[in-house]
Amino acid sequence: MTELEAFAVELSQAAARTALPYFRGDNAEENKAGPGAFDPVTEADRASEAAIRRLIAARYPDHGVIGEEYGEDRPDAEHVWVLDPIDGTRAFIAGLPLWTTLIALRHEGAPVIGAIGQPYLGEIFLGGPSGARLLRDGADTPLKTRACPSLSEALIATTDPDIFVGADREAWTRLRASARLARLGCDAYAYAMVAAGRIDLVAETELKVWDWSALKPVIEAAGGGVTGWAGQTPDGDGRILAVGDAALIDQALAVLNAHQ
Amino acid sequence: MTELEAFAVELSQAAARTALPYFRGDNAEENKAGPGAFDPVTEADRASEAAIRRLIAARYPDHGVIGEEYGEDRPDAEHVWVLDPIDGTRAFIAGLPLWTTLIALRHEGAPVIGAIGQPYLGEIFLGGPSGARLLRDGADTPLKTRACPSLSEALIATTDPDIFVGADREAWTRLRASARLARLGCDAYAYAMVAAGRIDLVAETELKVWDWSALKPVIEAAGGGVTGWAGQTPDGDGRILAVGDAALIDQALAVLNAHQ
Repeated sequence: MTELEAFAVELSQAAARTALPYFRGDNAEENKAGPGAFDPVTEADRASEAAIRRLIAARYPDHGVIGEEYGEDRPDAEHVWVLDPIDGTRAFIAGLPLWTTLIALRHEGAPVIGAIGQPYLGEIFLGGPSGARLLRDGADTPLKTRACPSLSEALIATTDPDIFVGADREAWTRLRASARLARLGCDAYAYAMVAAGRIDLVAETELKVWDWSALKPVIEAAGGGVTGWAGQTPDGDGRILAVGDAALIDQALAVLNAHQ
Repeated sequence: MTELEAFAVELSQAAARTALPYFRGDNAEENKAGPGAFDPVTEADRASEAAIRRLIAARYPDHGVIGEEYGEDRPDAEHVWVLDPIDGTRAFIAGLPLWTTLIALRHEGAPVIGAIGQPYLGEIFLGGPSGARLLRDGADTPLKTRACPSLSEALIATTDPDIFVGADREAWTRLRASARLARLGCDAYAYAMVAAGRIDLVAETELKVWDWSALKPVIEAAGGGVTGWAGQTPDGDGRILAVGDAALIDQALAVLNAHQ
Protein backbone atom coordinates (compact mmCIF):
# COMPACT_ATOMS: atom_id res chain seq x y z
CA MET A 1 0.00 0.00 0.00
CA THR A 2 1.35 3.45 -0.88
CA GLU A 3 1.58 6.23 1.68
CA LEU A 4 -1.38 8.03 0.12
CA GLU A 5 -3.46 4.86 -0.03
CA ALA A 6 -2.76 4.27 3.66
CA PHE A 7 -3.77 7.86 4.35
CA ALA A 8 -7.04 7.34 2.46
CA VAL A 9 -7.74 4.40 4.77
CA GLU A 10 -6.92 6.55 7.78
CA LEU A 11 -9.35 9.21 6.55
CA SER A 12 -12.05 6.61 5.96
CA GLN A 13 -11.60 5.23 9.48
CA ALA A 14 -11.78 8.70 11.01
CA ALA A 15 -14.96 9.44 9.06
CA ALA A 16 -16.43 6.12 10.19
CA ARG A 17 -15.72 6.85 13.87
CA THR A 18 -17.42 10.22 13.49
CA ALA A 19 -20.49 9.14 11.49
CA LEU A 20 -21.33 5.77 13.02
CA PRO A 21 -22.67 7.05 16.37
CA TYR A 22 -25.33 9.00 14.43
CA PHE A 23 -26.52 5.85 12.59
CA ARG A 24 -29.69 4.39 14.12
CA GLY A 25 -29.20 6.91 16.88
CA ASP A 26 -31.95 7.99 19.19
CA ASN A 27 -33.04 10.92 17.06
CA ALA A 28 -36.77 10.82 16.50
CA GLU A 29 -36.43 14.23 14.84
CA GLU A 30 -34.90 12.71 11.77
CA ASN A 31 -38.37 11.73 10.64
CA LYS A 32 -39.42 15.33 10.41
CA ALA A 33 -36.40 17.40 9.54
CA GLY A 34 -38.03 20.67 8.67
CA PRO A 35 -36.48 24.13 8.78
CA GLY A 36 -34.46 24.50 11.95
CA ALA A 37 -35.02 20.89 13.01
CA PHE A 38 -32.09 18.76 14.12
CA ASP A 39 -31.07 16.62 11.16
CA PRO A 40 -28.71 13.82 12.22
CA VAL A 41 -27.72 12.94 8.65
CA THR A 42 -26.55 16.45 7.95
CA GLU A 43 -24.89 16.57 11.37
CA ALA A 44 -23.07 13.30 10.69
CA ASP A 45 -22.13 14.49 7.20
CA ARG A 46 -20.68 17.77 8.47
CA ALA A 47 -18.88 16.29 11.45
CA SER A 48 -17.29 13.61 9.25
CA GLU A 49 -16.18 16.00 6.56
CA ALA A 50 -14.74 18.35 9.18
CA ALA A 51 -12.79 15.45 10.73
CA ILE A 52 -11.40 14.45 7.34
CA ARG A 53 -10.44 18.02 6.46
CA ARG A 54 -8.60 18.46 9.76
CA LEU A 55 -6.48 15.37 9.08
CA ILE A 56 -5.66 16.47 5.53
CA ALA A 57 -4.73 19.99 6.63
CA ALA A 58 -2.42 18.59 9.30
CA ARG A 59 -0.67 16.02 7.11
CA TYR A 60 -0.73 17.52 3.61
CA PRO A 61 -1.40 21.24 3.95
CA ASP A 62 -0.74 21.88 0.25
CA HIS A 63 -3.39 19.39 -0.90
CA GLY A 64 -6.72 20.71 -2.13
CA VAL A 65 -10.14 19.51 -0.89
CA ILE A 66 -13.57 19.38 -2.53
CA GLY A 67 -16.38 18.26 -0.26
CA GLU A 68 -20.15 18.19 -0.42
CA GLU A 69 -20.60 20.06 2.87
CA TYR A 70 -17.76 22.60 3.04
CA GLY A 71 -17.05 23.39 -0.61
CA GLU A 72 -13.71 23.84 -2.36
CA ASP A 73 -10.22 24.56 -1.03
CA ARG A 74 -7.39 24.82 -3.59
CA PRO A 75 -9.35 22.78 -6.19
CA ASP A 76 -6.50 23.26 -8.72
CA ALA A 77 -3.76 21.82 -6.50
CA GLU A 78 -1.72 18.90 -7.83
CA HIS A 79 -3.39 16.63 -5.26
CA VAL A 80 -7.06 17.18 -4.41
CA TRP A 81 -9.20 15.10 -2.04
CA VAL A 82 -12.84 14.73 -3.11
CA LEU A 83 -15.21 13.82 -0.26
CA ASP A 84 -18.73 12.61 0.33
CA PRO A 85 -18.80 11.62 4.00
CA ILE A 86 -22.29 10.07 3.74
CA ASP A 87 -23.42 8.86 0.35
CA GLY A 88 -26.86 7.27 0.50
CA THR A 89 -28.73 9.59 2.82
CA ARG A 90 -31.98 7.65 2.42
CA ALA A 91 -30.28 4.40 3.38
CA PHE A 92 -28.78 6.13 6.43
CA ILE A 93 -32.17 7.51 7.47
CA ALA A 94 -33.86 4.16 6.89
CA GLY A 95 -31.35 2.35 9.13
CA LEU A 96 -29.93 0.35 6.22
CA PRO A 97 -26.18 -0.36 6.36
CA LEU A 98 -25.60 0.47 2.67
CA TRP A 99 -24.67 4.16 3.02
CA THR A 100 -20.99 4.79 2.45
CA THR A 101 -18.17 7.21 3.08
CA LEU A 102 -16.59 8.15 -0.26
CA ILE A 103 -13.03 9.47 -0.34
CA ALA A 104 -11.09 10.06 -3.54
CA LEU A 105 -7.69 11.50 -4.30
CA ARG A 106 -7.25 13.28 -7.59
CA HIS A 107 -3.79 13.73 -9.06
CA GLU A 108 -3.56 16.41 -11.75
CA GLY A 109 -7.31 16.27 -12.22
CA ALA A 110 -7.81 12.49 -12.44
CA PRO A 111 -8.98 10.30 -9.53
CA VAL A 112 -6.18 7.86 -8.69
CA ILE A 113 -7.19 6.54 -5.25
CA GLY A 114 -10.66 5.69 -4.01
CA ALA A 115 -12.01 4.43 -0.68
CA ILE A 116 -15.61 3.26 -0.26
CA GLY A 117 -16.23 2.72 3.44
CA GLN A 118 -19.25 1.21 5.22
CA PRO A 119 -18.76 1.86 8.92
CA TYR A 120 -21.49 -0.41 10.33
CA LEU A 121 -20.06 -3.34 8.36
CA GLY A 122 -16.50 -2.24 9.14
CA GLU A 123 -15.64 -2.47 5.45
CA ILE A 124 -13.33 -0.32 3.33
CA PHE A 125 -13.12 -1.02 -0.40
CA LEU A 126 -9.84 0.56 -1.51
CA GLY A 127 -8.48 1.07 -5.03
CA GLY A 128 -5.29 2.75 -6.19
CA PRO A 129 -1.85 2.22 -7.71
CA SER A 130 -1.21 -0.90 -5.65
CA GLY A 131 -4.46 -2.61 -6.60
CA ALA A 132 -7.96 -3.12 -5.23
CA ARG A 133 -8.71 -4.68 -1.87
CA LEU A 134 -11.36 -5.09 0.80
CA LEU A 135 -10.21 -4.27 4.32
CA ARG A 136 -12.35 -5.75 7.09
CA ASP A 137 -11.67 -7.08 10.58
CA GLY A 138 -7.92 -6.92 9.98
CA ALA A 139 -8.22 -8.99 6.79
CA ASP A 140 -6.90 -7.60 3.48
CA THR A 141 -8.63 -9.38 0.56
CA PRO A 142 -7.93 -8.63 -3.11
CA LEU A 143 -10.90 -7.40 -5.15
CA LYS A 144 -11.46 -8.55 -8.70
CA THR A 145 -14.37 -7.91 -11.03
CA ARG A 146 -15.81 -10.95 -12.74
CA ALA A 147 -16.05 -11.83 -16.40
CA CYS A 148 -19.46 -11.18 -17.94
CA PRO A 149 -19.06 -10.86 -21.69
CA SER A 150 -22.78 -10.56 -22.46
CA LEU A 151 -25.34 -8.06 -21.17
CA SER A 152 -27.97 -10.81 -21.23
CA GLU A 153 -26.02 -12.55 -18.43
CA ALA A 154 -25.47 -9.42 -16.39
CA LEU A 155 -26.72 -8.64 -12.89
CA ILE A 156 -27.30 -4.89 -13.06
CA ALA A 157 -28.15 -2.29 -10.44
CA THR A 158 -29.42 1.22 -9.98
CA THR A 159 -30.53 2.98 -6.82
CA ASP A 160 -34.03 4.05 -7.86
CA PRO A 161 -35.59 4.01 -11.36
CA ASP A 162 -37.64 7.06 -10.34
CA ILE A 163 -34.43 9.13 -10.38
CA PHE A 164 -34.32 8.71 -14.15
CA VAL A 165 -36.47 11.24 -15.99
CA GLY A 166 -37.83 11.23 -19.53
CA ALA A 167 -35.61 9.49 -22.06
CA ASP A 168 -33.24 8.35 -19.28
CA ARG A 169 -36.09 6.40 -17.70
CA GLU A 170 -36.77 4.68 -21.00
CA ALA A 171 -33.06 3.98 -21.37
CA TRP A 172 -33.01 2.27 -17.97
CA THR A 173 -36.14 0.27 -18.82
CA ARG A 174 -34.47 -0.98 -22.02
CA LEU A 175 -31.28 -1.81 -20.12
CA ARG A 176 -33.16 -3.77 -17.47
CA ALA A 177 -35.03 -5.70 -20.16
CA SER A 178 -31.69 -6.60 -21.78
CA ALA A 179 -30.07 -7.88 -18.59
CA ARG A 180 -30.49 -11.06 -16.58
CA LEU A 181 -31.42 -9.57 -13.22
CA ALA A 182 -31.71 -6.13 -11.66
CA ARG A 183 -31.15 -5.00 -8.10
CA LEU A 184 -32.31 -1.68 -6.66
CA GLY A 185 -31.52 0.48 -3.65
CA CYS A 186 -27.77 0.13 -3.24
CA ASP A 187 -26.34 3.64 -3.75
CA ALA A 188 -22.53 3.59 -3.96
CA TYR A 189 -22.40 0.16 -2.35
CA ALA A 190 -23.44 -1.29 -5.72
CA TYR A 191 -20.13 -0.07 -7.18
CA ALA A 192 -18.23 -1.78 -4.38
CA MET A 193 -20.01 -5.00 -5.39
CA VAL A 194 -18.90 -4.45 -9.01
CA ALA A 195 -15.32 -4.29 -7.75
CA ALA A 196 -15.96 -7.41 -5.67
CA GLY A 197 -17.20 -9.37 -8.71
CA ARG A 198 -20.80 -9.68 -7.49
CA ILE A 199 -22.62 -7.11 -9.65
CA ASP A 200 -21.78 -6.69 -13.35
CA LEU A 201 -23.07 -3.22 -14.18
CA VAL A 202 -24.42 -0.08 -12.51
CA ALA A 203 -26.10 2.76 -14.42
CA GLU A 204 -27.11 6.00 -12.74
CA THR A 205 -27.73 9.66 -13.37
CA GLU A 206 -27.48 12.80 -11.25
CA LEU A 207 -24.14 11.79 -9.72
CA LYS A 208 -22.03 14.67 -8.46
CA VAL A 209 -18.23 14.67 -8.65
CA TRP A 210 -17.99 13.53 -5.01
CA ASP A 211 -20.39 10.68 -5.76
CA TRP A 212 -18.35 9.04 -8.53
CA SER A 213 -14.72 10.08 -7.98
CA ALA A 214 -14.01 7.43 -5.34
CA LEU A 215 -15.77 4.68 -7.28
CA LYS A 216 -13.63 4.92 -10.40
CA PRO A 217 -10.21 3.99 -8.94
CA VAL A 218 -11.73 1.11 -6.95
CA ILE A 219 -13.48 -0.44 -9.94
CA GLU A 220 -10.60 0.20 -12.34
CA ALA A 221 -8.01 -1.29 -9.99
CA ALA A 222 -10.29 -4.35 -9.66
CA GLY A 223 -10.39 -4.81 -13.44
CA GLY A 224 -13.54 -2.93 -14.50
CA GLY A 225 -14.36 0.42 -16.04
CA VAL A 226 -16.32 3.59 -15.27
CA THR A 227 -17.51 5.92 -18.04
CA GLY A 228 -20.24 8.42 -18.84
CA TRP A 229 -23.29 7.41 -20.87
CA ALA A 230 -21.70 8.90 -23.99
CA GLY A 231 -18.72 6.60 -23.52
CA GLN A 232 -16.13 9.11 -22.40
CA THR A 233 -14.80 9.45 -18.89
CA PRO A 234 -17.40 10.81 -16.41
CA ASP A 235 -17.47 14.47 -17.30
CA GLY A 236 -19.99 16.26 -15.23
CA ASP A 237 -23.39 15.48 -16.77
CA GLY A 238 -23.93 13.06 -13.88
CA ARG A 239 -24.60 9.97 -16.02
CA ILE A 240 -22.41 7.09 -14.91
CA LEU A 241 -21.93 3.60 -16.29
CA ALA A 242 -19.76 1.20 -14.29
CA VAL A 243 -18.94 -2.32 -15.45
CA GLY A 244 -16.90 -5.22 -14.17
CA ASP A 245 -16.17 -6.54 -17.66
CA ALA A 246 -15.15 -3.92 -20.23
CA ALA A 247 -16.98 -5.95 -22.90
CA LEU A 248 -20.23 -4.67 -21.41
CA ILE A 249 -19.51 -1.00 -22.11
CA ASP A 250 -20.34 -0.99 -25.82
CA GLN A 251 -23.35 -3.27 -25.35
CA ALA A 252 -24.76 -1.14 -22.54
CA LEU A 253 -24.12 2.17 -24.34
CA ALA A 254 -25.86 0.82 -27.45
CA VAL A 255 -28.96 0.01 -25.37
CA LEU A 256 -28.85 3.23 -23.33
CA ASN A 257 -28.47 5.39 -26.43
CA ALA A 258 -30.79 3.46 -28.77
CA HIS A 259 -33.15 5.54 -30.91
CA GLN A 260 -36.61 5.69 -29.42
CA MET B 1 -36.80 -14.75 26.93
CA THR B 2 -39.04 -17.83 26.83
CA GLU B 3 -37.65 -21.29 26.10
CA LEU B 4 -39.14 -21.25 22.61
CA GLU B 5 -37.80 -17.77 21.88
CA ALA B 6 -34.34 -18.90 22.95
CA PHE B 7 -34.72 -21.91 20.69
CA ALA B 8 -35.66 -19.65 17.75
CA VAL B 9 -32.41 -17.76 18.35
CA GLU B 10 -30.50 -21.04 18.45
CA LEU B 11 -32.08 -22.04 15.11
CA SER B 12 -31.22 -18.67 13.59
CA GLN B 13 -27.60 -18.97 14.73
CA ALA B 14 -27.33 -22.49 13.30
CA ALA B 15 -28.76 -21.32 9.98
CA ALA B 16 -26.32 -18.40 9.95
CA ARG B 17 -23.32 -20.67 10.52
CA THR B 18 -24.47 -22.85 7.64
CA ALA B 19 -25.37 -20.14 5.11
CA LEU B 20 -22.66 -17.55 5.71
CA PRO B 21 -19.76 -19.48 4.14
CA TYR B 22 -21.68 -19.51 0.84
CA PHE B 23 -22.10 -15.71 0.86
CA ARG B 24 -19.59 -13.97 -1.41
CA GLY B 25 -17.98 -17.38 -1.78
CA ASP B 26 -15.68 -18.23 -4.62
CA ASN B 27 -18.44 -19.55 -6.85
CA ALA B 28 -18.20 -18.00 -10.29
CA GLU B 29 -20.93 -20.42 -11.38
CA GLU B 30 -23.53 -18.45 -9.52
CA ASN B 31 -23.59 -16.03 -12.45
CA LYS B 32 -24.82 -18.71 -14.80
CA ALA B 33 -26.89 -21.14 -12.80
CA GLY B 34 -28.53 -23.10 -15.60
CA PRO B 35 -29.93 -26.61 -15.42
CA GLY B 36 -27.53 -28.83 -13.55
CA ALA B 37 -25.19 -25.98 -12.67
CA PHE B 38 -24.00 -25.52 -9.11
CA ASP B 39 -26.18 -22.88 -7.52
CA PRO B 40 -24.72 -21.66 -4.22
CA VAL B 41 -27.91 -19.90 -3.15
CA THR B 42 -29.95 -23.05 -3.45
CA GLU B 43 -27.14 -25.01 -1.80
CA ALA B 44 -27.01 -22.55 1.10
CA ASP B 45 -30.81 -22.56 1.33
CA ARG B 46 -31.03 -26.35 1.47
CA ALA B 47 -28.13 -26.81 3.87
CA SER B 48 -29.55 -24.20 6.25
CA GLU B 49 -33.06 -25.60 6.23
CA ALA B 50 -31.70 -29.11 6.79
CA ALA B 51 -29.66 -27.85 9.76
CA ILE B 52 -32.72 -26.17 11.27
CA ARG B 53 -34.91 -29.23 10.74
CA ARG B 54 -32.37 -31.48 12.44
CA LEU B 55 -32.36 -29.27 15.53
CA ILE B 56 -36.16 -29.14 15.69
CA ALA B 57 -36.50 -32.90 15.25
CA ALA B 58 -34.01 -33.52 18.05
CA ARG B 59 -35.50 -31.02 20.53
CA TYR B 60 -39.22 -30.96 19.72
CA PRO B 61 -40.04 -34.08 17.71
CA ASP B 62 -43.79 -33.42 17.89
CA HIS B 63 -43.52 -29.94 16.35
CA GLY B 64 -44.45 -29.47 12.69
CA VAL B 65 -42.26 -27.78 10.07
CA ILE B 66 -43.07 -25.88 6.88
CA GLY B 67 -40.06 -24.85 4.82
CA GLU B 68 -39.46 -23.48 1.35
CA GLU B 69 -36.99 -26.21 0.39
CA TYR B 70 -38.21 -29.41 2.05
CA GLY B 71 -41.96 -28.96 2.22
CA GLU B 72 -44.37 -29.76 5.04
CA ASP B 73 -44.05 -32.05 8.04
CA ARG B 74 -47.04 -32.24 10.43
CA PRO B 75 -48.38 -28.83 9.27
CA ASP B 76 -51.41 -29.24 11.58
CA ALA B 77 -49.41 -29.76 14.76
CA GLU B 78 -50.04 -27.43 17.72
CA HIS B 79 -46.59 -25.89 17.16
CA VAL B 80 -45.30 -25.46 13.61
CA TRP B 81 -42.01 -23.85 12.56
CA VAL B 82 -42.18 -21.91 9.29
CA LEU B 83 -38.81 -21.43 7.61
CA ASP B 84 -37.18 -19.43 4.85
CA PRO B 85 -33.45 -19.95 5.35
CA ILE B 86 -32.49 -17.35 2.72
CA ASP B 87 -35.00 -14.64 1.95
CA GLY B 88 -33.68 -12.17 -0.62
CA THR B 89 -31.96 -14.45 -3.09
CA ARG B 90 -31.05 -11.54 -5.36
CA ALA B 91 -29.40 -9.67 -2.51
CA PHE B 92 -27.46 -12.82 -1.63
CA ILE B 93 -26.32 -13.28 -5.24
CA ALA B 94 -25.40 -9.60 -5.54
CA GLY B 95 -23.20 -9.75 -2.42
CA LEU B 96 -25.48 -7.39 -0.50
CA PRO B 97 -25.83 -8.08 3.24
CA LEU B 98 -29.62 -7.59 3.27
CA TRP B 99 -30.72 -11.19 2.73
CA THR B 100 -32.16 -12.75 5.86
CA THR B 101 -32.93 -16.02 7.57
CA LEU B 102 -36.62 -16.08 8.50
CA ILE B 103 -37.83 -18.37 11.28
CA ALA B 104 -41.36 -18.32 12.67
CA LEU B 105 -43.19 -20.40 15.23
CA ARG B 106 -46.91 -20.84 14.78
CA HIS B 107 -49.06 -21.82 17.73
CA GLU B 108 -52.47 -23.17 16.77
CA GLY B 109 -52.15 -21.59 13.35
CA ALA B 110 -51.00 -18.10 14.32
CA PRO B 111 -47.35 -16.94 14.21
CA VAL B 112 -46.28 -16.09 17.77
CA ILE B 113 -42.49 -15.96 17.53
CA GLY B 114 -40.39 -14.53 14.71
CA ALA B 115 -36.64 -14.26 14.12
CA ILE B 116 -35.18 -12.20 11.28
CA GLY B 117 -31.45 -12.95 11.09
CA GLN B 118 -28.74 -11.32 8.96
CA PRO B 119 -25.64 -13.47 9.37
CA TYR B 120 -23.06 -11.14 7.78
CA LEU B 121 -24.16 -8.35 10.12
CA GLY B 122 -24.47 -10.77 13.04
CA GLU B 123 -27.97 -9.46 13.72
CA ILE B 124 -31.09 -11.26 14.91
CA PHE B 125 -34.34 -9.30 15.21
CA LEU B 126 -36.52 -11.34 17.56
CA GLY B 127 -40.18 -10.89 18.43
CA GLY B 128 -42.43 -12.96 20.67
CA PRO B 129 -44.30 -13.10 23.98
CA SER B 130 -41.48 -11.41 25.88
CA GLY B 131 -41.16 -8.49 23.47
CA ALA B 132 -39.07 -7.40 20.51
CA ARG B 133 -35.29 -7.08 20.59
CA LEU B 134 -32.20 -6.87 18.43
CA LEU B 135 -29.45 -9.30 19.36
CA ARG B 136 -25.98 -8.38 18.08
CA ASP B 137 -22.47 -8.81 19.42
CA GLY B 138 -23.78 -9.97 22.77
CA ALA B 139 -25.97 -6.86 23.14
CA ASP B 140 -29.73 -7.22 23.64
CA THR B 141 -31.50 -4.01 22.59
CA PRO B 142 -35.27 -3.47 22.74
CA LEU B 143 -36.99 -2.74 19.43
CA LYS B 144 -39.76 -0.21 19.18
CA THR B 145 -41.58 1.09 16.13
CA ARG B 146 -41.86 4.85 15.88
CA ALA B 147 -44.89 7.10 15.79
CA CYS B 148 -45.90 8.28 12.34
CA PRO B 149 -49.53 9.31 12.40
CA SER B 150 -49.63 10.59 8.82
CA LEU B 151 -48.81 8.80 5.56
CA SER B 152 -47.44 12.06 4.19
CA GLU B 153 -44.65 11.85 6.80
CA ALA B 154 -43.90 8.19 6.20
CA LEU B 155 -40.71 6.61 4.93
CA ILE B 156 -42.02 3.64 2.96
CA ALA B 157 -40.32 0.68 1.30
CA THR B 158 -40.82 -2.09 -1.18
CA THR B 159 -38.29 -4.44 -2.72
CA ASP B 160 -38.93 -3.79 -6.42
CA PRO B 161 -41.85 -1.90 -8.00
CA ASP B 162 -41.56 -4.21 -11.03
CA ILE B 163 -42.89 -7.06 -8.86
CA PHE B 164 -46.26 -5.29 -8.78
CA VAL B 165 -48.40 -6.04 -11.82
CA GLY B 166 -51.41 -4.20 -13.25
CA ALA B 167 -53.58 -2.50 -10.65
CA ASP B 168 -51.08 -3.39 -7.90
CA ARG B 169 -48.42 -1.36 -9.70
CA GLU B 170 -50.76 1.62 -9.85
CA ALA B 171 -51.56 1.12 -6.17
CA TRP B 172 -47.84 1.27 -5.30
CA THR B 173 -47.38 4.36 -7.46
CA ARG B 174 -50.22 6.10 -5.60
CA LEU B 175 -48.80 5.02 -2.24
CA ARG B 176 -45.34 6.31 -3.11
CA ALA B 177 -46.81 9.63 -4.23
CA SER B 178 -48.64 9.91 -0.88
CA ALA B 179 -45.58 9.25 1.26
CA ARG B 180 -42.58 11.35 2.19
CA LEU B 181 -39.81 9.11 0.95
CA ALA B 182 -39.45 5.64 -0.56
CA ARG B 183 -36.65 3.12 -0.30
CA LEU B 184 -36.24 0.09 -2.57
CA GLY B 185 -34.33 -3.18 -2.52
CA CYS B 186 -34.55 -4.31 1.09
CA ASP B 187 -36.47 -7.61 1.04
CA ALA B 188 -37.37 -8.75 4.57
CA TYR B 189 -34.76 -6.46 6.09
CA ALA B 190 -37.19 -3.58 5.50
CA TYR B 191 -39.58 -5.18 8.02
CA ALA B 192 -36.78 -5.41 10.57
CA MET B 193 -36.29 -1.66 10.09
CA VAL B 194 -40.02 -1.12 10.73
CA ALA B 195 -39.60 -2.95 14.04
CA ALA B 196 -36.51 -0.83 14.75
CA GLY B 197 -38.42 2.40 14.19
CA ARG B 198 -36.50 3.44 11.05
CA ILE B 199 -39.02 2.67 8.29
CA ASP B 200 -42.73 3.43 8.72
CA LEU B 201 -44.42 1.20 6.17
CA VAL B 202 -43.69 -1.69 3.80
CA ALA B 203 -46.09 -2.83 1.06
CA GLU B 204 -45.41 -5.91 -1.03
CA THR B 205 -47.12 -8.63 -3.03
CA GLU B 206 -46.26 -12.22 -3.89
CA LEU B 207 -45.14 -13.06 -0.35
CA LYS B 208 -45.35 -16.72 0.57
CA VAL B 209 -46.25 -17.95 4.05
CA TRP B 210 -42.54 -18.44 4.90
CA ASP B 211 -41.83 -14.88 3.74
CA TRP B 212 -44.21 -13.11 6.11
CA SER B 213 -44.75 -15.43 9.09
CA ALA B 214 -41.57 -14.38 10.89
CA LEU B 215 -42.11 -10.68 10.21
CA LYS B 216 -45.47 -10.42 11.94
CA PRO B 217 -44.45 -11.33 15.53
CA VAL B 218 -41.36 -9.10 15.33
CA ILE B 219 -43.28 -6.04 14.13
CA GLU B 220 -46.24 -6.65 16.44
CA ALA B 221 -44.06 -7.12 19.51
CA ALA B 222 -42.30 -3.85 18.59
CA GLY B 223 -45.61 -1.98 18.49
CA GLY B 224 -46.61 -2.13 14.82
CA GLY B 225 -49.01 -4.14 12.69
CA VAL B 226 -49.01 -6.50 9.71
CA THR B 227 -52.11 -7.05 7.59
CA GLY B 228 -53.17 -7.99 4.07
CA TRP B 229 -54.12 -5.31 1.56
CA ALA B 230 -57.80 -5.95 2.29
CA GLY B 231 -57.16 -5.15 5.95
CA GLN B 232 -57.46 -8.59 7.43
CA THR B 233 -54.57 -10.66 8.69
CA PRO B 234 -52.27 -11.91 5.89
CA ASP B 235 -54.32 -14.72 4.38
CA GLY B 236 -52.52 -16.20 1.48
CA ASP B 237 -53.01 -13.79 -1.43
CA GLY B 238 -49.44 -12.63 -0.87
CA ARG B 239 -50.26 -8.94 -0.41
CA ILE B 240 -48.68 -7.62 2.77
CA LEU B 241 -48.87 -4.25 4.49
CA ALA B 242 -46.63 -3.65 7.50
CA VAL B 243 -46.67 -0.48 9.55
CA GLY B 244 -44.89 0.85 12.60
CA ASP B 245 -47.82 3.07 13.62
CA ALA B 246 -51.27 1.46 13.42
CA ALA B 247 -52.69 4.83 12.39
CA LEU B 248 -51.14 4.26 8.97
CA ILE B 249 -53.15 1.12 8.19
CA ASP B 250 -56.41 2.83 7.24
CA GLN B 251 -54.63 5.61 5.35
CA ALA B 252 -52.51 3.17 3.37
CA LEU B 253 -55.40 0.81 2.62
CA ALA B 254 -57.47 3.75 1.37
CA VAL B 255 -54.70 4.70 -1.07
CA LEU B 256 -53.92 1.11 -2.11
CA ASN B 257 -57.58 0.29 -2.74
CA ALA B 258 -58.66 3.64 -4.24
CA HIS B 259 -60.89 3.47 -7.31
CA GLN B 260 -58.93 3.93 -10.48
